[in-house]
Amino acid sequence: MELEFLGTGSGQPSKFRNVASIALRLLDERNAVWLFDVGEATQHQILKTTIRPRKIEKIFISHLHGDHIFGLPGLLSSRSFQGADKNEPLTIYGPKGVKSFITTALRVSETHLSYPIHYVEIEEGTIFEDETFKVVAAPLRHRMAAWGFRVEEKPHAGELLIDKVRADKIPSGPVYGRLKAGETVILDDGRTVNGQDYLGPAQPGRVITIIFDTMPADSELFLAEGADVLVHEATYGMSKDEGKMARAHGHSTSRDAANLAQKAGVKKLVLTHVSARYIGPLLQKFISDVHKLFANTYVARDLDVVDVPFEKEQHE
Amino acid sequence: MELEFLGTGSGQPSKFRNVASIALRLLDERNAVWLFDVGEATQHQILKTTIRPRKIEKIFISHLHGDHIFGLPGLLSSRSFQGADKNEPLTIYGPKGVKSFITTALRVSETHLSYPIHYVEIEEGTIFEDETFKVVAAPLRHRMAAWGFRVEEKPHAGELLIDKVRADKIPSGPVYGRLKAGETVILDDGRTVNGQDYLGPAQPGRVITIIFDTMPADSELFLAEGADVLVHEATYGMSKDEGKMARAHGHSTSRDAANLAQKAGVKKLVLTHVSARYIGPLLQKFISDVHKLFANTYVARDLDVVDVPFEKEQHE
Repeated sequence: MELEFLGTGSGQPSKFRNVASIALRLLDERNAVWLFDVGEATQHQILKTTIRPRKIEKIFISHLHGDHIFGLPGLLSSRSFQGADKNEPLTIYGPKGVKSFITTALRVSETHLSYPIHYVEIEEGTIFEDETFKVVAAPLRHRMAAWGFRVEEKPHAGELLIDKVRADKIPSGPVYGRLKAGETVILDDGRTVNGQDYLGPAQPGRVITIIFDTMPADSELFLAEGADVLVHEATYGMSKDEGKMARAHGHSTSRDAANLAQKAGVKKLVLTHVSARYIGPLLQKFISDVHKLFANTYVARDLDVVDVPFEKEQHE
Repeated sequence: MELEFLGTGSGQPSKFRNVASIALRLLDERNAVWLFDVGEATQHQILKTTIRPRKIEKIFISHLHGDHIFGLPGLLSSRSFQGADKNEPLTIYGPKGVKSFITTALRVSETHLSYPIHYVEIEEGTIFEDETFKVVAAPLRHRMAAWGFRVEEKPHAGELLIDKVRADKIPSGPVYGRLKAGETVILDDGRTVNGQDYLGPAQPGRVITIIFDTMPADSELFLAEGADVLVHEATYGMSKDEGKMARAHGHSTSRDAANLAQKAGVKKLVLTHVSARYIGPLLQKFISDVHKLFANTYVARDLDVVDVPFEKEQHE
């Protein structure tokens, strides 16, 4: 599970930062990639990565500003060109207008996709859940309706303690699989054994929170609580003047993001959606300022890959 | 007057060729830039040039396939962000659907442009004309309605032959301006002189023809006749198999383009909209094959600038 930052800028593309898009790489977990927002030229950024568009299973759209959605028609078309077939559907979770934008673009350009798209209009609460993941959405505070996302991985079952199994002289065979699944089994020698007694501790799933364009909002704490990684917009730095600009445009500062990270007890904060003004010395000041408030902060650059490891203590 | 190739690929972006867009730089002629087609990430390509989006005065759209239009919403938004004002309107000439695509994208994204857009639905014939330029459109043969463009510069008046004026002892002053304008003037000494006698030969204007996606069509000859530069799509090379693929997809080969250049007596042929398959040795073969048919051919690469000079003999 890794986050790959396809675009870390805000408003419009600059030489160093493309407009917003993040890939959540779930190749080990579900052989799939999820995208969060698709600014223009997201498909161009993907060309520079190992991501294959047909592996994109879900797209989550935080809000409908152009720098977060104008890459959708091209990406969807290229996913078709590149051979995604009718058994490789794509689900798009977004605010209401996203469907009308996409269908107009595809209709006008006479683009006939080779795979189906399912649209899910985001409402507060759980917007997706299966055996391995749950995604929860909550409303933010921006100049238009905007959503933040909490991606929760389900706990991984504990591993079979093979040394203990052998110490109790349980013969190998299909019974190992049943024990691993936590079942109670009657052995050939008549003993009854409970799989639960042979399993290591369950591994809690990881939590990733992705919060694009917003001013500070109460819902953020709920979304970010205890996250392994909090990805948060920080369009502006933390001086008083920058704070005023952030509010005037419905955005957050690096201070807002760091305060949230602190309150929510997240393990790592990654900042994105950074204004193009922060280059050179201004970017360095931006970085060192936020480090003073929340040490484990990383300011993402385009094409950075941030790993989301399991907690170390869970492996012991 | 120069052509700047912002995207020279076809269908979808590749690492080396972006999707279709050409800038016609008319900075000396009218302090403006015209765009022909706006594939996704055209605004990103513009970031690598000296073009300022607010200088873009007109956009011509050949047809509505995604690789020719999906960059419009982002480019139009950024032109607004970058301060184009209400006195800097933009005119977009295109097939009917282009307005619906743009207005939907701007409405959904709540983008309020700082300048007006005028839409002109293309019909056969002259679609624009003023004192300095005329643009003529003609229908092509593609999988959907598609248009080719002939851009004609109006002739430049001859220069005032200052040596001849002095030899005839015409005193300097405002009268020189009137002679330059070709007027007949009565001098203070009573002589009547005709400006036409003091002007060098008029300079014929330059002609540029831009033909994107098409199979060979009769209208092409009319568009390309005697052009200084013919820009033509060549999605495929000239083998028999490539010819079949070209027809199957409604496209031209390099042979089609060279044949047209020959028949139309153009001075220079520039090929664009080249399939991503032509890289390395295949591209070299593509180039040398077409040179055998029409020597003055250039296969454009992204960000190439091709100058369109006046004919040398006109300067004598």
